[in-house]
Parts: sequence; C-alpha cells; structure tokens
Amino acid sequence: MNLFSPTLLLDKARCLRNLDRMVDRAARHSVTLAPHFKTHQALEIAKWGKTRGVREITVSSIEMAYHFVSMGWESITIAFPVNILAFFQLNELARKVSLNVFVNDVEVAKALGKGMRYPVNCLIEVDTGYGRTGVLASDTETLEALVQIISDAPNLNLLGFYTHPGHTYAARGVAEISSIYRDTLAKLQQVKAHFAAKGHDVQLRLGDTPSCSTQDDFSDISHITPGNFIFYDVMQVQIGSCEVDDIAVALAVPVVETHPSRHEIIVHGGAVHLSKDAIIDENGHRIFGWIVRFIDGKWGTPVAGAYVKAISQEHGTITWEGDSLQEVKPGDLLGILPIHSCLTADLMQEYLTLDGEVIRMRGRNG
Amino acid sequence: MNLFSPTLLLDKARCLRNLDRMVDRAARHSVTLAPHFKTHQALEIAKWGKTRGVREITVSSIEMAYHFVSMGWESITIAFPVNILAFFQLNELARKVSLNVFVNDVEVAKALGKGMRYPVNCLIEVDTGYGRTGVLASDTETLEALVQIISDAPNLNLLGFYTHPGHTYAARGVAEISSIYRDTLAKLQQVKAHFAAKGHDVQLRLGDTPSCSTQDDFSDISHITPGNFIFYDVMQVQIGSCEVDDIAVALAVPVVETHPSRHEIIVHGGAVHLSKDAIIDENGHRIFGWIVRFIDGKWGTPVAGAYVKAISQEHGTITWEGDSLQEVKPGDLLGILPIHSCLTADLMQEYLTLDGEVIRMRGRNG
Repeated sequence: MNLFSPTLLLDKARCLRNLDRMVDRAARHSVTLAPHFKTHQALEIAKWGKTRGVREITVSSIEMAYHFVSMGWESITIAFPVNILAFFQLNELARKVSLNVFVNDVEVAKALGKGMRYPVNCLIEVDTGYGRTGVLASDTETLEALVQIISDAPNLNLLGFYTHPGHTYAARGVAEISSIYRDTLAKLQQVKAHFAAKGHDVQLRLGDTPSCSTQDDFSDISHITPGNFIFYDVMQVQIGSCEVDDIAVALAVPVVETHPSRHEIIVHGGAVHLSKDAIIDENGHRIFGWIVRFIDGKWGTPVAGAYVKAISQEHGTITWEGDSLQEVKPGDLLGILPIHSCLTADLMQEYLTLDGEVIRMRGRNG
Repeated sequence: MNLFSPTLLLDKARCLRNLDRMVDRAARHSVTLAPHFKTHQALEIAKWGKTRGVREITVSSIEMAYHFVSMGWESITIAFPVNILAFFQLNELARKVSLNVFVNDVEVAKALGKGMRYPVNCLIEVDTGYGRTGVLASDTETLEALVQIISDAPNLNLLGFYTHPGHTYAARGVAEISSIYRDTLAKLQQVKAHFAAKGHDVQLRLGDTPSCSTQDDFSDISHITPGNFIFYDVMQVQIGSCEVDDIAVALAVPVVETHPSRHEIIVHGGAVHLSKDAIIDENGHRIFGWIVRFIDGKWGTPVAGAYVKAISQEHGTITWEGDSLQEVKPGDLLGILPIHSCLTADLMQEYLTLDGEVIRMRGRNG
C-alpha cells in the first residue's frame, strides 16, 4: 500500500458478507431491515443495500436525513427524539418523503401536532432498561397519553414503538445478549398487546446490533434497524455480536517511532482519526484499538499482545509485548481495528477499499 | 439564539483576551510565541495572531502544514515525528517555506538526510518524563548521534530541541505544574549546555499549555508553542492553567428530553460533536462536559451539580441535581463547555461567534 497518512481501509468483501448475512436474517425472520446509515454515511454503501432490497433506512440526525433524501431515499426514520426547534426542517422533509420520527414526550407531541403541516409517522421510543431516551415500558400512563395525542392530531400517524436496548452493549457473550433481549422483547410485546386491545395496530422496531446479529426470535417485531453490523468493530467482538474477521474496516497508520526498551511504538493515528472510545480487556487494560499487519494487500488477525494503549490528537501509542516488535520500523504501515467503527468512520469521512476504490461519505455538517 | 442543531459558539472577546495574555507573556519573557494551530485550525483566528506579531506557527500534521502554507504562513513547525513515507510532501513544503520537523530516530535522520532535496530545520524532541515521543533527556548517546547525522547532512539544519512535557496534564494546580516544569527545564538546560560545550548553538522550544500559561522562568527557552490556550477547556481548568471564565468555546445543544425523576436531561450533542475525552472529578464522576445556560446572548458560569455524564454518537445525557432542572424544557438550548476543545473544534469544523459571525476551519482531510 502506497499511503503516507492515516487512511480508513474498507474490506468490501467482508462488508458485503456482513450485509448479506443481515439481509438473510431479516428475510428468514420475516422482518423488514431498515438499516441505520449513521455508521457508514456513504451513498455508495447505501446502494449495496438497495440492490439487496433495502427500501427503508434509519439515520441519526436531520442533517443526515437531508443527505439521504437528496440521494433519492424515500422512507426514512430519524432515530433521535424529535427536536421541536426544527419544525421547518421536519416539514420540508415530510413534504418530500415518508418520514418517521420519535415522539417520547407529551409536550413535544402536542407541539409536533401543531407544528406539522405535512403528515409524519410517529414512533414512541420504549425504554426497556437502557435508561437513555424514551418512555419506560412500565409507564402506561405516558404511553397512553402519547398515543392519544398522536391519534388526535391530523398530521401525526401512529406507527408504533421503537427500542434501542443499548444495555446489550454491556453484555459479554451471546447468552448475556439473549437474556437482555428476551426481557426487552417481552416488554415490547406487552406494550403492543396493551394497545392492540384498544384497537391500535402498531409496529415494533428494534435497533441494536448485538440483538439483531445474534437472536432468532423476532416474534411481533416488524423492523430491525442495526447500523454497526455493516463494519462491526472491536467492541462488537467483545460483546459477542461477531467474530474478529467480520470487522470490515481498519485504519492504516504509519509508524513514526519505535521504543523497543519500553515495548512501544508511536504511529500517526490519534483521536482525530479513531475517536476516543475504548474497551477494558480481560486484564483490565484500557484499549483504543487492536493491531493488525498487512500481507498481500489484506490485513491479518490481531497481533497477540499488541494494542493501542493511549491516543492524543494525532499520536497513537501502541504497546507491543512480543519479540515481533523488532520487525517493525519507522515507515512501516500498521492497521488499527477500531473500537467503535461508527465514530472512526465519521471522523475519517472516506474509505479506501482494498481494491483501491475511494468511497466518500456525506461530508461533515453537510 | 436561533439554532436548531449542535453549534460551536466562540466568545471572541475571551479568545482575544487569552491570545493577548499569551502574547504579553512571551514578550515579557523574551521568548517567541509560535502558537500551535491544531486547536483552532482557522484562518481567521490565525490572523488575530498575525496582527499581534505572530510569524512562526506550529501544526500537528503535514496536511495542516499545507493548509497554512497555502494561506501565506512562511515559518512552520510540524510538531510530530517526521514521517519518512512523506518525503514528497516534505520536499514540496520545504521548497516553499521555512520548515521545521522533529527528528527523533537515528535511522529516520539518515533517511531524511538522503531524502531532502531542499533545506529543512531539525528539532530533536526531548522526552523529559512524558514517555510518549522523543529521546530521553538522559540518552546522551542517541542525542549525540542525531546531532551528528543532522550536522553532516547538507540539507538538514540543526535548530535545537523541543519538548512537550505532556505529563503536566496530570497536574492539579499550579504548584504541581511548576514542579514538573522545573524538572523539564533543568533537563533541557543540561542538554543545551552539553551541546553548547561542543560548539552547537541550539534553540529550546516548549509546547504545553499548562507550563506556558502559568510559569515565569523561561531561561534558555527560545520559543513557546502552546495551542489550547486560545480556547482553554474544562481539562485546563482542572489542571490549573486557567479559570473557568477563560474558556472561549461552548457547544450549544438543543434539549430533546427531560427526565426529572432520574435528574437527567437528554440533549442533541454527542461523540460526533464533543469527542469522548472525559475528566474524573473530585467525587469520582466521569464527566464529558460542564453545563452552562445562555442569558442575553452569552453563557454563564457552570450550573452547580450539572454535567454531561454519558455520550453516545448523537446523544448527550446530562445529570442535573438541582431543582433548576424543572426550568429546563425540550426546545431549550443549553451550552456544554468541552473537556478538550481541540477535539471538539476538530469535529465541529466551524465556529459561530456570539456576534453571529461564522468562522470556518480548514475542512477535514483538506
């Protein structure tokens, strides 16, 4: 590889394998795959989904919705609590496409009912234990109030309920993911049954990559909306969502110093490339990335005993315990498997495939 | 303020006050201020320095050097170990401007000597205890070898020694900064004296914002190169480099949910806006930002008992202990004082001054 600065490499074959697997899972379980595009944010990668039948997509911001609407996508969920400062933008989007928004607050729902001049579909986020956004599954009073306000407002359509059980990210292994997922599914089914008894036919949508990647009971779920699965990352390997050779992106970084006496290597690759998400490994080490080497234009399995131990703005400090440290010299390229590929991709803004194709993202703030 | 999405606000008056103070410090101590532009990365802010006499600048990457060279800056230090994969770019820059690079490795120095077709000035990074890049101050053998290689190579000019004593970032209060700084200065002075005795008249350059902001003995130092001082941030307040009302940037974020029962607020403002740097406060809480409110178009002092406790890609979760939580509603704007303003600025790519002026940065990967 003829690179001189940090470059986000994309293994297209792995990426397509991840995509095909999730498309197959959705088909097998008769759920609609409405993938979250916040991970890749790239028109080209979006097209790979389109050729496999993806028609509905999920995004994380109004800006991202604008981008994909301008690229011809016609059914979009903004998977973020609706922002009542943005009625102008929401109306502009709702005028053009089938728009789904999250309505989790009674006052927000009332304001939205007044503010929308075009029809918008409403999903109520259900908090099944993650404790971030949405209404507690047990808070029937608020759920009923929201359903009522949405049902009464001329331009609000009740679509159903969404949950991102992000507490699966604390799981270690499929058994723990399954335990959290089963609890989430039971809570969602209760909510659905409650409103079905009142005559509301509602969807249930589920968002997290760990559950979508590993579970086999999607009863009553209409849509799955994972994002990270397209690339996966070190965090998803630790959770148990995937294997290390499913990770489809690696940051290529130039080695600029070696310090054999302290078993460390300095690379050009820091917080402005990787972001600062970390995992704590089984030895209690804080890890900002696993290290891979390049052979024949591909990356191999992670080097045992090597990991990014610290990052500053542009520097990465790699701990490298084994004797193979002696083989690494300034001017070499190493690969870093990111902890959180969504944030790394968002920072890098373009991909270089192993075949040499450049794939651009939407552009920040654009 | 009429904003609907996360926006990085710049208090220009505070920023100019920070700049003036550092310009005055440099003048008072007869050192050259060669500020690090990795923090703001903005041509407009660079000009504020130029009108105050700044002529030499520091950057953190070759890409950033290109940007400021194209904007007419003629004396630039790339404060990062020289990358021998980038001789083409280094020659292109060295042909146009007075270029300083870091040469910390014997093999790299030899390669650079062969690779440069235009003169380049070399600084050797001295590690005075930070343990990241450079040569240990005690490693006289390597320092001498580097000085020899640089002195012998036709296109390499020995400029002197640079240190970024980043271990001051672990300091809490000026006394601790001073202790680390005095040790660093003593080590640098020894290195300078050692090479002066051999007939080399060398510069000493110092990079860290905590020392540059607080110290008063710059004997033998020729240049100070702080960057963060232009904005400061929560981390610098914790270190003791500045006061909270010196912080010149705040991320304005819309409130999208309030959860009074758990004393939490959800805002649109996450890792793609703030980055993920955190501090641990005196109560052991991991904090991703302090919270301010806006009054009359300015932000106030941080709200007691309120801080960003968690961030995901687009969400910020704020803990808000006091009763004033009741006053906050969806649709309000709050401000977040960033933990690390360099990373927040790099993500946001533009500033909105409190007077309504938009200041753009260089553009990522540009």
